[in-house]
Amino acid sequence: MTDHQPGRHMAAEIDQQPGIFSDLYDRRSAIAGVADVIRERQPRFVLLAARGSSDHAALYAKYLTEVLLQLPAGLVSPSTTTLYGAQPDLRDVLLVSVSQSGGSPDLLEVTQSARARGALTVAVTNTSDSPLNGAAELSVDVGAGLEKAVAATKTYSATLLALYLLVDAIRGGDGAAAASLGALAQSTLDASEEAVADAVQRYRFVDRVLTTGRGYSLPSALESALKLAETSYLAARAYSGADLLHGPVAAVDGETAVLAVTSKGKGGDALHDVLDVVHGRGADVVAVGSASSDVPAALRIPVAETAEEVAPILEILPVQRLAHGLSLARGGDPDAPRGLKKVTQTR
Amino acid sequence: MTDHQPGRHMAAEIDQQPGIFSDLYDRRSAIAGVADVIRERQPRFVLLAARGSSDHAALYAKYLTEVLLQLPAGLVSPSTTTLYGAQPDLRDVLLVSVSQSGGSPDLLEVTQSARARGALTVAVTNTSDSPLNGAAELSVDVGAGLEKAVAATKTYSATLLALYLLVDAIRGGDGAAAASLGALAQSTLDASEEAVADAVQRYRFVDRVLTTGRGYSLPSALESALKLAETSYLAARAYSGADLLHGPVAAVDGETAVLAVTSKGKGGDALHDVLDVVHGRGADVVAVGSASSDVPAALRIPVAETAEEVAPILEILPVQRLAHGLSLARGGDPDAPRGLKKVTQTR
Repeated sequence: MTDHQPGRHMAAEIDQQPGIFSDLYDRRSAIAGVADVIRERQPRFVLLAARGSSDHAALYAKYLTEVLLQLPAGLVSPSTTTLYGAQPDLRDVLLVSVSQSGGSPDLLEVTQSARARGALTVAVTNTSDSPLNGAAELSVDVGAGLEKAVAATKTYSATLLALYLLVDAIRGGDGAAAASLGALAQSTLDASEEAVADAVQRYRFVDRVLTTGRGYSLPSALESALKLAETSYLAARAYSGADLLHGPVAAVDGETAVLAVTSKGKGGDALHDVLDVVHGRGADVVAVGSASSDVPAALRIPVAETAEEVAPILEILPVQRLAHGLSLARGGDPDAPRGLKKVTQTR
Repeated sequence: MTDHQPGRHMAAEIDQQPGIFSDLYDRRSAIAGVADVIRERQPRFVLLAARGSSDHAALYAKYLTEVLLQLPAGLVSPSTTTLYGAQPDLRDVLLVSVSQSGGSPDLLEVTQSARARGALTVAVTNTSDSPLNGAAELSVDVGAGLEKAVAATKTYSATLLALYLLVDAIRGGDGAAAASLGALAQSTLDASEEAVADAVQRYRFVDRVLTTGRGYSLPSALESALKLAETSYLAARAYSGADLLHGPVAAVDGETAVLAVTSKGKGGDALHDVLDVVHGRGADVVAVGSASSDVPAALRIPVAETAEEVAPILEILPVQRLAHGLSLARGGDPDAPRGLKKVTQTR
């Protein structure tokens, strides 16, 4: 560590995202080719398999699948395969396995098993020669380049974009909502810089953080909590705005920091009532997103406005910067959080 | 509140569970009748819809569905229907809506919409004349009796048992693994009393609690975190043992209390590695379950041994007592946590 400037890799990888988004959009015809095969096979049910940050990307894809493809979808519990040996009938099922490394043994086993049981399998990875790519019938290359920091940033957002382009192409779209994301990512990083610096100051001594969002922004809330936990060691919990009101809100008080992810659209609209409740309980609200100016908040972090279904690709950018800055402010190294390795071996 | 002894209702409802389990087992032929209809219709995919504690029961049913019925399954994100108006093709789909009250507007809308789109719909509620029962084609009555405490206890465990009996009957079983649960629940409550009292002392001043479990015990870990958050206002987070190692473990240190739910079987076996890691990081582990004596832990709360697939019905009992005792020790009233009502109106 002696010659390493803490957080150097994570900072650089955050900054690469605008260019990665533009490149990925330009490569959308490769993804459309995969989408053509999927459309021909007419899946009736979609399963998504992932762990960690990729699981939040999978949840985003679940929303896209249900809303844009009008197909029922579910997130796989890998242990039903790896521990309990379930061998379900998966004809007419599309299994999408999402993994930065493509090296997680449990996802490999789930994908091999699903393929053997009749599912059409697609690997979405940032490592195109990975075991997972070998196991799946089809592959989507996220193409974010090698990620050196342990905490996923560019691979997370690029995976979201790859999944959006895939789903949109399956329904016959041309990815139009994603055309400007590169430029909008840059303007978001620039425009949010000051508010993020304020949020780093505000959270310097925080312990209890609760993140929340609704609809498409729920995956952003989950990823935000993970990012703050793994880089800055906060006890950060994430809840859908609706689930929050079903119990956990009791634990919200004047000592609770609430990071609310809210974008223009139906998810952001539905979060209003939730934030009125937590604000009424004295919680300190920091709002992130293109609708952050519409809600009661102590601090607002702006994000460029987009179609709601691609907002998660931008919402997470200032939170990554917040996690990075907070880790440094607390004396950590966000490139190498204690106790973590880049590829986690779980079954 | 003047004539109310804090926590009286929750204590009574916890104690009613052995009798409720026996009664529900004796009524299993009614559930088997619902199962017969489902089996005839030969669903190929199962969707589960729920909020709050019932969502943890739904996750339990997802494991049962995948492992015992060998059918792919997913948890519904209600907002894709209620906010985004998704109208997926749900022929060959079984939708199971789980709700104590049967009064949540979002579940009602999801159920009505799914039925209109071709799904076979089943309501699993503790309120047999609820709107949800009216909306669904089939109904399973949990039959736990009126629950007065806001925090769900007997309705949660009885819902698990009703779901087990339903799934087991669909595969042609007679619920044999559940035959002794009434007696085992009583022996668990009796045998765990002293260890629970010790855990209340141990957690009197805790702030950071992380709950974990694998396989069938993951829903128990989620429900444990919710119970501790809503009654005792702890910042309690829940992770699958596998996901924990994918990032959140960085936030685990000597100040972290880990409540590990572990039963005899494959899920408990797979948790060993996870607990070795968190123990090695200096965390304080309290283990709950029939395998609690097999893991490194500062305190062990015993639970009677059963077939692994019904263990969640017992594992949660001492945690309910812990939540109750801790709430009282901290000066709260677990019957009426601040900011909560019995039926939460979310869309």
